[in-house]
Amino acid sequence: MRILITGVDGYIGWALSMHLALNGHEVAGIDDYSRRRWVGEMGSQSAIPIAPMAERLSAYRKHIGQNLRFYKGDLTDYNFVLNAYKSFQPEAIVYLGEMPSAPYSMVDVHHAVYTQQNNIIGTLNTLFAMREVVPECHLVKLGTMGEYGTPNVDIPEGFFEIEYRGRKDKMMFPRKAGSWYHQSKVHDTNNVEMACRIWGLRSTDIMQGVVYGTQIDDMPREKDLKTRFDFDQSFGTAINRFCAQAVIGIPITPYGLGKQKRGFIPLRDSVQCLTIATENPPQRGEYRVFNQFEEVYSIMELAQKVQKIGNEFDLNATIQPLENPREEMEEHYYNPDHDHFLELGYKPTRDMDSELRLMFKDLLEHKDRIEERKEAHFPDIRWDGSRRKSSVLK
Amino acid sequence: MRILITGVDGYIGWALSMHLALNGHEVAGIDDYSRRRWVGEMGSQSAIPIAPMAERLSAYRKHIGQNLRFYKGDLTDYNFVLNAYKSFQPEAIVYLGEMPSAPYSMVDVHHAVYTQQNNIIGTLNTLFAMREVVPECHLVKLGTMGEYGTPNVDIPEGFFEIEYRGRKDKMMFPRKAGSWYHQSKVHDTNNVEMACRIWGLRSTDIMQGVVYGTQIDDMPREKDLKTRFDFDQSFGTAINRFCAQAVIGIPITPYGLGKQKRGFIPLRDSVQCLTIATENPPQRGEYRVFNQFEEVYSIMELAQKVQKIGNEFDLNATIQPLENPREEMEEHYYNPDHDHFLELGYKPTRDMDSELRLMFKDLLEHKDRIEERKEAHFPDIRWDGSRRKSSVLK
Repeated sequence: MRILITGVDGYIGWALSMHLALNGHEVAGIDDYSRRRWVGEMGSQSAIPIAPMAERLSAYRKHIGQNLRFYKGDLTDYNFVLNAYKSFQPEAIVYLGEMPSAPYSMVDVHHAVYTQQNNIIGTLNTLFAMREVVPECHLVKLGTMGEYGTPNVDIPEGFFEIEYRGRKDKMMFPRKAGSWYHQSKVHDTNNVEMACRIWGLRSTDIMQGVVYGTQIDDMPREKDLKTRFDFDQSFGTAINRFCAQAVIGIPITPYGLGKQKRGFIPLRDSVQCLTIATENPPQRGEYRVFNQFEEVYSIMELAQKVQKIGNEFDLNATIQPLENPREEMEEHYYNPDHDHFLELGYKPTRDMDSELRLMFKDLLEHKDRIEERKEAHFPDIRWDGSRRKSSVLK
Repeated sequence: MRILITGVDGYIGWALSMHLALNGHEVAGIDDYSRRRWVGEMGSQSAIPIAPMAERLSAYRKHIGQNLRFYKGDLTDYNFVLNAYKSFQPEAIVYLGEMPSAPYSMVDVHHAVYTQQNNIIGTLNTLFAMREVVPECHLVKLGTMGEYGTPNVDIPEGFFEIEYRGRKDKMMFPRKAGSWYHQSKVHDTNNVEMACRIWGLRSTDIMQGVVYGTQIDDMPREKDLKTRFDFDQSFGTAINRFCAQAVIGIPITPYGLGKQKRGFIPLRDSVQCLTIATENPPQRGEYRVFNQFEEVYSIMELAQKVQKIGNEFDLNATIQPLENPREEMEEHYYNPDHDHFLELGYKPTRDMDSELRLMFKDLLEHKDRIEERKEAHFPDIRWDGSRRKSSVLK
């Protein structure tokens, strides 16, 4: 299948590009290296060094055995998107090309506007270019579990049947996002659903949990093929950040009481699920939603897991909660469904401990790079708009 | 109260600016004349001639007895918005400054992107400027009944209590919009709700039905104070378009079978409701939704009403349904609530016939201006992206 990955230079995109090619697909990618710039703006860098795209591409050719067709450009430029789709004629698009950080979107009005503009316009351009060039193509769109927020009822996969005042309907499950970034994904969800409904496009919208890990099995161990690993306050997800903290011997810092619950999934299973979704397209006109995560933990449980495995490496990790820089519910009900991927054959890894061991091994090699950007760990982007560093919670 | 109206040069904004001043409020306005340009782009013009802003402002001073503080500028420019709010220090903002047309947003990718960008960024800028300058200010935001679509259950005012798998929560009622414009309003709804939740701002989000009419009682009959009246396929709402068609003796053209139901409200009552919402602000941190319409009719019932009153003016109006250029449900359940405004003292006019008589009187004076732009009546903006004129339905 001809599969195009937007955001191919990113954390998941790069790993996925190799996995898909090794599973017999013809892969193309789009990127303009925004992720490298955003992380730089946060004063940080990938813990694992990543090669420039030219070197990535030649190592890919050598070790994966096929060319990755790479289009450098900005997804908010319609003509660029249109020409890329005309040239590659994708049968599926895995849309990872968005600004993915909640804190980054909360910095100030310019970051909020940039985030929504970048994500919404990129997606609109893709919907229009699909209609124009490849109306049969399947859009595998990345959303986030954060779109739903933390309602007091079970979270279904996108839709629910309700009875209201004696009448019934099947409706979109209401979203309640907690950052301008998460809202941009809700806006995308609404736009993509409409394009399927009125234009007969097809899409799988994936509500993904927090992704962690440094590798996937079939990723060659070449230095030019490694995928990035961020640990800064904006682009490092909770577990990745906790591991990096343990590696350089600073306390693991959950926000607030750490009772917030989230769904987690290792990179290898994220890549597995995205492949499954891509290989099993919906019908024309169908818009479907899959929740993509494996296990639900509280942030404190997570910190304790990282601490435990860190201590196997003699890291003497400690946990020090910080004042929560975010506005979010810290104690809440959380019971999201996640059956659709299992029905399609997804085999969950369900072994966070082994994954954490691999991560520590990889990260200990690059302890110096994390040390160099130590400051990037400490959150100062607050949901109230100030840039005050979070104090230590007693 | 110091009230700022964004989009003060528009159809509702201009009428509202006079109504508020005559009710004792201090009024300021923002506009950059976009509406005049959009209608020009559609090859049309306001049936009722409207004066340039300089003349509007001097007639306003003379006949309303106070200055309208006018800020010319673009709401997507944060510094402009910030400075206007700093200068005027509004206690309420009535946010009418958006691109309001479904067909305009469906022309092509550029119009879709422009619409969402213009509406979303303008609203984000306002939320950030409120937080920075006037956090106590009340945002009266204009949404649309079209955000809800036409679900198979009753439509509450914004929120509903549900029981799902044995647990309960109060949630946003799911939206299901049918154009990129309507989606932009859904995106605003989500953004505004979040700003109230995390920043403690306050807002009334008004889901408004289709507005019609040429005047309000307390609007002086001066030519330089008249508000605009559009009849083109994009900016003319259904009744306004039907009246203009009857005036120049071409058939009234409902789309499809005309069984689509919508809520309608005359301009005078829209202005009355917006004033009531503004004078009765919610608490800090509260986000509330009011559905604002008066009566529900099908589009065919509406066409027949226009025909009947038109014939009192010897217009021999005929009805000729056109192939529907939109993708929408033509037969559906429709029962939206609209109690909140009534509870706050709204007195509905509930006399569409008299309103239509006033409209015909005003429009017959400007028959030549409608004739001049006759072509603008015939829809060729189709939801499928083509620009084919709708054929006559047998």
